[in-house]
Amino acid sequence: MKPSTGTVYLVGAGPGAPDLLTLRAARLLGEADIVFYDALVHPETVALALRAQKVAVGKRCGKHSTAQQFINKRLVDAARRHRVVVRLKGGDPMLFGRAQEEIAALEAAGIACEVVPGITAALAAAAELRTSLTQRGSARSVTFATPRVGSDQPDSAWADGLVAADAGAIYMGVGEAERIAQTLLAAGKARGLPVAIVESASLPEQRIRYTTLADLPRFAQETVAGPALILLGPQFRARATTAGEDERERCRDQPGEATG
Amino acid sequence: MKPSTGTVYLVGAGPGAPDLLTLRAARLLGEADIVFYDALVHPETVALALRAQKVAVGKRCGKHSTAQQFINKRLVDAARRHRVVVRLKGGDPMLFGRAQEEIAALEAAGIACEVVPGITAALAAAAELRTSLTQRGSARSVTFATPRVGSDQPDSAWADGLVAADAGAIYMGVGEAERIAQTLLAAGKARGLPVAIVESASLPEQRIRYTTLADLPRFAQETVAGPALILLGPQFRARATTAGEDERERCRDQPGEATG
Repeated sequence: MKPSTGTVYLVGAGPGAPDLLTLRAARLLGEADIVFYDALVHPETVALALRAQKVAVGKRCGKHSTAQQFINKRLVDAARRHRVVVRLKGGDPMLFGRAQEEIAALEAAGIACEVVPGITAALAAAAELRTSLTQRGSARSVTFATPRVGSDQPDSAWADGLVAADAGAIYMGVGEAERIAQTLLAAGKARGLPVAIVESASLPEQRIRYTTLADLPRFAQETVAGPALILLGPQFRARATTAGEDERERCRDQPGEATG
Repeated sequence: MKPSTGTVYLVGAGPGAPDLLTLRAARLLGEADIVFYDALVHPETVALALRAQKVAVGKRCGKHSTAQQFINKRLVDAARRHRVVVRLKGGDPMLFGRAQEEIAALEAAGIACEVVPGITAALAAAAELRTSLTQRGSARSVTFATPRVGSDQPDSAWADGLVAADAGAIYMGVGEAERIAQTLLAAGKARGLPVAIVESASLPEQRIRYTTLADLPRFAQETVAGPALILLGPQFRARATTAGEDERERCRDQPGEATG
């Protein structure tokens, strides 16, 4: 009979704001014996793990697979020593979170594993923009994609789903805005396609800017402080609103009406 | 000067399980004066609104635009009489939630409005399957789509993003599984493309079945009890796992290895 081991919970910490955590995630953090957390998780969220040993694993984009393998090993080791192990990831674990590699390592070691979903950045960004990713009758599909290619060679296949869908959200793309714009323009997307860049979605330092596909590279260069999401689609045209001061504040960075 | 009005919060209730609500949503429900909730929201979630008047607006899929206009009007009226108005929607408001129509009505009436994101069904389903929607190096894009067309004529454009992306999630599609399979097969998707159907994701009555695109219509007919999500992609091949009894239970409904 195998020695009894703990359970590893892969937990989505949500987009940034500590109160966009789920009730289940908050409870598990309170019960955790040990927590491994990513660099982008808010300190207040990590602090909910009152009795846990807290281990920063420091992954951001541009991570190495050796680092991933090291994390996998630490999760397996922790489950052999603790009852409740929490792996806390920014956003949602199942969307650009590399959770599958951790799940595979845990299953190979015979360790129980559960996934707790989190609010992904695109939904937090859409909430802040008060602009739905889908729109009844006109936007019935939305594609979430990333131009980051892991160990593969760069290519344009990552963008096919974005080109074909009514709207899109690009994760980890700001650093490759030039290539994104070139790829989508070459595939026939309009130069004037409305684009919203949402930096640090849901956090006090959040910054929202509206532009167009043709102007995306220039705008993205100015977006450097925090993780940013690029949203594309007709509905992301900067709009005059009747809302209050907060929205006007946001509008100062807008380049005006999209050009085509 | 305009009379002072309350704020309307469009709040995502998440996929079903009451503890997949966000902390922010739970707090707002506790502060709410009045809550308008959809049919699919869990009763325990609605019950968090301890001091609020609770109004079922009873929308499910197949809703009428007259009903939507009536909801819009009730939200505007409520904001003129109450300080905290919560509009509680299943899943996330900005993904297949028709939030835009409510936001537009509120903005037209000069009423402050905020959106609180929720866990969308596709992420809850992926968590339950322990299968990531994206996979490093092999699935860099995922499309969320619905075949429901609102007032438009049926067509196949809704599926273009699904056809082009590496993986897909189809909302409100089980009743149209025949048309979905025909559309995707005609567009060149493989008959053996792995499909997972997740019914009542995150709830005790959850049911998971694995099939293929060619067999989707037959399987979907058997899925009638609750709201269901269809996931497509190479990663949704039924897998033997080393996890416990719970996973073996799920596997009984599997049709075996996908056929091609």
